[in-house]
Amino acid sequence: MKAEIVSIGTEILLGEILDTNARFIASRLPALGIDLYWTSQVGDNHGRLAELLRRAWGRSDLILCTGGLGPTEDDVTREAISDVVGEEPRVDAVQEEILRRFFAGRGIVMPERNLKQAWLTPSTRPIPNPRGTAPGWWVEKDGRILLAMPGPPAEMTRMWEEEVEPRLRGRSTGAVIVSRTIKTVGIGEGSVDEMIGDLLHTDNPSIGVYARADGIHVRVTAKAPATRQAESLIAPVEAELRRILSSAIWGIDDETLESSIGGLLLERGLSLATMESCTGGLLASTITDVSGSSLYFRGSIVSYATEVKEQFGVNPAIVETYGVISAETARAMAGAVRRTLHADVGVGITGVAGPTTQEDKPPGTVHIACDAGRGEPAVMSYTMAQGREAVKRRAVTNALFLIRRALLAAPTG
Amino acid sequence: MKAEIVSIGTEILLGEILDTNARFIASRLPALGIDLYWTSQVGDNHGRLAELLRRAWGRSDLILCTGGLGPTEDDVTREAISDVVGEEPRVDAVQEEILRRFFAGRGIVMPERNLKQAWLTPSTRPIPNPRGTAPGWWVEKDGRILLAMPGPPAEMTRMWEEEVEPRLRGRSTGAVIVSRTIKTVGIGEGSVDEMIGDLLHTDNPSIGVYARADGIHVRVTAKAPATRQAESLIAPVEAELRRILSSAIWGIDDETLESSIGGLLLERGLSLATMESCTGGLLASTITDVSGSSLYFRGSIVSYATEVKEQFGVNPAIVETYGVISAETARAMAGAVRRTLHADVGVGITGVAGPTTQEDKPPGTVHIACDAGRGEPAVMSYTMAQGREAVKRRAVTNALFLIRRALLAAPTG
Repeated sequence: MKAEIVSIGTEILLGEILDTNARFIASRLPALGIDLYWTSQVGDNHGRLAELLRRAWGRSDLILCTGGLGPTEDDVTREAISDVVGEEPRVDAVQEEILRRFFAGRGIVMPERNLKQAWLTPSTRPIPNPRGTAPGWWVEKDGRILLAMPGPPAEMTRMWEEEVEPRLRGRSTGAVIVSRTIKTVGIGEGSVDEMIGDLLHTDNPSIGVYARADGIHVRVTAKAPATRQAESLIAPVEAELRRILSSAIWGIDDETLESSIGGLLLERGLSLATMESCTGGLLASTITDVSGSSLYFRGSIVSYATEVKEQFGVNPAIVETYGVISAETARAMAGAVRRTLHADVGVGITGVAGPTTQEDKPPGTVHIACDAGRGEPAVMSYTMAQGREAVKRRAVTNALFLIRRALLAAPTG
Repeated sequence: MKAEIVSIGTEILLGEILDTNARFIASRLPALGIDLYWTSQVGDNHGRLAELLRRAWGRSDLILCTGGLGPTEDDVTREAISDVVGEEPRVDAVQEEILRRFFAGRGIVMPERNLKQAWLTPSTRPIPNPRGTAPGWWVEKDGRILLAMPGPPAEMTRMWEEEVEPRLRGRSTGAVIVSRTIKTVGIGEGSVDEMIGDLLHTDNPSIGVYARADGIHVRVTAKAPATRQAESLIAPVEAELRRILSSAIWGIDDETLESSIGGLLLERGLSLATMESCTGGLLASTITDVSGSSLYFRGSIVSYATEVKEQFGVNPAIVETYGVISAETARAMAGAVRRTLHADVGVGITGVAGPTTQEDKPPGTVHIACDAGRGEPAVMSYTMAQGREAVKRRAVTNALFLIRRALLAAPTG
């Protein structure tokens, strides 16, 4: 089944909103065995929308529209669809009743212009939308399915999950696509390619290697008539990849670095604390994005001013000798916060977020240390200039990797 | 000038990444007087990409592509463009030299397959890309312009700002659209509508009212042959809006809450420190997203463990009496961090990020206090359950509003 997504709204074309609906729908199609070939965005313009829908009607089996179902003159999705299928939209008595009740339930008299939200055409079945006034349209004609869903993501996602996906399941005769993502660290894209070698040339499941912010991802994708069969195609290849990549693997599928570290800390019964300078608290915030992190995360000292570092245990002589932006200061910060917040593991980050230099060090210079209380703290130093927020984000990712390494190196408690 | 955006990458169609490039480019076109009629996404498929580009070539004056400029066989943007313009791509000696130097600078031998990144066609001029290996393509033929930019946002945005936008400026003969956004706080969407009344019915400039996470935005948009004329259409309306909305206005255009607070702190010569519990450092991280924030931000104590709050000056009797999740504890945190980090203004946040309850308080319960050292600290308490990350983000926005209010209430130092 060949699908196409059409997002409707002038705000998208003005760059005022991100089209998150298309991404949401796109991410749900592979598991339904539906192939997505095209997505497009078009403004609230009857002519251009009808042109696009007509092309979609000619080349796709399933057309998934979002947006343009509001009550105003600008909302032309119903009109354009009616054009394309050559039918006249009319007020449906049942839909009108639902609509009037929706307004009455909120103590408001329905504005008459909302009546167009009760329109249907002969080939159209309404899709319930308890979260808003506009029902969706399920149009089925000449072997094609065209769906129109509301633009507000809260209305669209509910409609998709409760109404659309259950009805589409099983309508596709196509194969189901299932994938498993294995996330690694410490080996480059080229090396992963070499290590998994011949597996790369298998066809089903197929294997892809991707460089991401949190390391190299290896994705195994299988196509089969049903989910179970796809999973059994993946299993032996996954086992083989786990054998080959072994200790480089830090997570599977939706697992994040912060959740994986949380798991390691819990397993080992260890607590964590951070002292952050250039990341300004973003490391602590990322660690606490994990629900249950209060079980192992003690807290952070965001020592933006140099005196704050020294106030909480960083030796002024180290800062004096090596500078604030130095591996030595990062190490001192890790040790200081470990002691001050009574944690088992301490992390220190110092660097230049930019855009200006500091102590003659260029923006993007970062030093990270992780002190697990035994032996020398692990230290990572690098320079990668990319703009303030990117420098912060990358430092957080690298700090999480460093924590992971330190935890794995330490004997289990 | 009619423009069209084409984003290339199978990952977009699989819903794995959001197409933020299209939004970025779309947001930059109105000020250039360029009308955007279509945006679409297509996978790494030569045939479908060429089909799409051919249609774009037929209906648009300016085609803006991103993605598919990598070195692998999957990257087919150069091939598809060459097809559409009917030209043969060849290795360009100058580009090859730049490419080899890029790799040499990183101490790596260039893989031969990267050579295709040095391709050009007779109608193509290269667009420099110091952030990556792939130069952009500026193709100009038969009165059409087609640009291909790299997919990674850091490379694309730099190329757009430094290379593409300056060259496009003045190429368009269309009317320029200029807008000014006035950001307010403390009044609802309906009240803003009522207050600005008749202004809403003007045509050029037109006025829109939008509810956003950081308050109600009023946008004035004017269309004119040139920027200066559009600006003089906006000026009187803006003056009138400033008079009407007066003290509710906290920012203009790209100004963020964190930068506006930074400005107020600098103006008053005051310093700031925070003690955060449920936001886990996100407030400090947001404050330090502003370049130059080290001039007024001293730091933060992320007191995830209750003992850490008490260690840094929160009176245990208050926690004991009112609970950790209470306005009283937030107030004690604000005062404690103000004293501990020697700041003029202290902020305390405590709450339940969720998903589980804490002290029988439901997820989304948040207390924020701001202590500016004179009189009673300002306090804000609310419950708004939305999922862990949304609770954190909303608490940060509210804390910034509270800081702003406290700064404006305090006499200028």
